[in-house]
Amino acid sequence: MSCELCALAAPAVYRDDKLSVIIVDDAAYPGFCRVIWNDHVKEMSDLPQADRLLINEAVYQVELALVSIMEPVKVNLASLGNMVPHLHWHLIPRYQDDAQFPSPVWAPAVRTTAEPVLEARRALLPQLAAEIARRMEKKA
Amino acid sequence: MSCELCALAAPAVYRDDKLSVIIVDDAAYPGFCRVIWNDHVKEMSDLPQADRLLINEAVYQVELALVSIMEPVKVNLASLGNMVPHLHWHLIPRYQDDAQFPSPVWAPAVRTTAEPVLEARRALLPQLAAEIARRMEKKA
Repeated sequence: MSCELCALAAPAVYRDDKLSVIIVDDAAYPGFCRVIWNDHVKEMSDLPQADRLLINEAVYQVELALVSIMEPVKVNLASLGNMVPHLHWHLIPRYQDDAQFPSPVWAPAVRTTAEPVLEARRALLPQLAAEIARRMEKKA
Repeated sequence: MSCELCALAAPAVYRDDKLSVIIVDDAAYPGFCRVIWNDHVKEMSDLPQADRLLINEAVYQVELALVSIMEPVKVNLASLGNMVPHLHWHLIPRYQDDAQFPSPVWAPAVRTTAEPVLEARRALLPQLAAEIARRMEKKA
């Protein structure tokens, strides 16, 4: 069986022997990140304790990078995996003018964010990538 | 400002001085649980390290209780908080016949689960409550 998360969809901003961090190319949500466990594991509770702490810490570091660089009003964290049962975390910076706010990003869209606003957020992505790499390398 | 999570919506299955666990009364999703930080804090990254570990461990214990009692095909974990910026985790047992599978529960419903199936899942809730309490008290 092929799993799209075993083969990363985007170049990793950070990768070590345990996990990878990517910035998702999402037109409506610049700064959307994923922390992906490298091994094909289904649930958080399938990980041994040390590995759970490791992925939780990675999610925390990426959240801090999002808060400092993207300045969202809220960060959304989710580990779903119904379609692709390969452990990964979504980290989504949310804004009052985003397509679904205040609903989750999986709800129907209620607006279109102005293109210059999205452009300004996209312009921060190189900084975001650098900040994630800096935090993850410091931690490792 | 009033916050609906500062006043718990359901009786807690477990509560200590830091956090509470409730089973949400959701007609389509028996076994839907929330782990709620007692203090009015916004983001995971606003918690000091020891408290982050504490809430992560609670989410893990409730996930294990869901897996063993509810036997879902997948557990969904999410900390969103766009409407109520008071730190809480949703834990949702997912099944192939549930209202939104394989989409997130916040997507439009695609089916109605047969009532006898929902009834059978609801019948497990006392066991689920006992297993959560047992795991949380052992941990504490």
